[in-house]
Amino acid sequence: MNYPKGIIKNHKNTINYSNRGMTLEDDINESNLYYREHDIAYIYKKPTPIKITKVDYPERKKAKIKEAFFMEPSTTDYNGIYKGKYIDFEAKETNIKTSFPLANIHPHQIAHLNHIIRHGGIGFIIARFTKLNQTFLLPATSLLEYLNNSSRKSIPYDYFSKNGYLIKEKLSPRLDYLQIVQNLLEVNYEEK
Amino acid sequence: MNYPKGIIKNHKNTINYSNRGMTLEDDINESNLYYREHDIAYIYKKPTPIKITKVDYPERKKAKIKEAFFMEPSTTDYNGIYKGKYIDFEAKETNIKTSFPLANIHPHQIAHLNHIIRHGGIGFIIARFTKLNQTFLLPATSLLEYLNNSSRKSIPYDYFSKNGYLIKEKLSPRLDYLQIVQNLLEVNYEEK
Repeated sequence: MNYPKGIIKNHKNTINYSNRGMTLEDDINESNLYYREHDIAYIYKKPTPIKITKVDYPERKKAKIKEAFFMEPSTTDYNGIYKGKYIDFEAKETNIKTSFPLANIHPHQIAHLNHIIRHGGIGFIIARFTKLNQTFLLPATSLLEYLNNSSRKSIPYDYFSKNGYLIKEKLSPRLDYLQIVQNLLEVNYEEK
Repeated sequence: MNYPKGIIKNHKNTINYSNRGMTLEDDINESNLYYREHDIAYIYKKPTPIKITKVDYPERKKAKIKEAFFMEPSTTDYNGIYKGKYIDFEAKETNIKTSFPLANIHPHQIAHLNHIIRHGGIGFIIARFTKLNQTFLLPATSLLEYLNNSSRKSIPYDYFSKNGYLIKEKLSPRLDYLQIVQNLLEVNYEEK
């Protein structure tokens, strides 16, 4: 399978910080750290799943992985808790200006988001149109509605601007997506 | 840091199934699969966090990790959703018959469980006394209470038998820990 993009950047970032804050993943990680430090929410990125095939033990306590391969994730990348609610989402960026390619999200990740919302959790995707400098939160319900009614291999930008919520970029947290989650929770409570 | 025990076993299991069902991790993974297949809960083990330091690209789509190291996990190993509730736990086994060594659980994992229950999630540990063939669910509240009142480096078996809940081993799911979670939820609702 393909080399996950985030990893290269993460690895590079441990040596070279020049790109820091430029990727969506960095922005989300920084925001999640902000939420934890301010006791607002506990949301983490899951580690990248790998299959380990060779390990060396140069010393008793220092295992070194000599061969491993990237595996396809079974679930979304991010999950955690916010105000007692289970939160679950996937985040991806695209260079395309007019649509978001669905190849960015695996079918089992979409199935997973469906299970989450059926079971009362909060599920969504965060999609960044890098060239437009715009980042949207699209609720899983809207994502699934689109997929049920379309056979296209991408979601048009217009669908995000109509059904998604533009996430404000701030100084801190850089990408305050929980503000939108909070608004959605309040709307849902009012409706009930 | 130490080589995580589960990984060796997982890897071996992909080749040799003779140990199947013998480890606590296997039992929990099988139970979580059962819960998912029966649409009861969506709980997953997080991948083991590693730091990748060298990657090879023999072909465009086949990245091979040539060097990586195990990292300390920031959170517990398992989380997910059950009846709209956020579930979070750590699972460990010990060969000791009389107590459960606290070295099995990192201080930041304990801090994490504390955050989870403060924010309305369900947090606990699953501890197996391998030699006794007994597996307990100990709610995070009881774990934290013990830690606040003791400076010992282990939790006595008696503390588990008094404050924990013995998990029945069944054919399927092998370790039905959600049955205990369900009982605890009902007791909490009755009290309120």
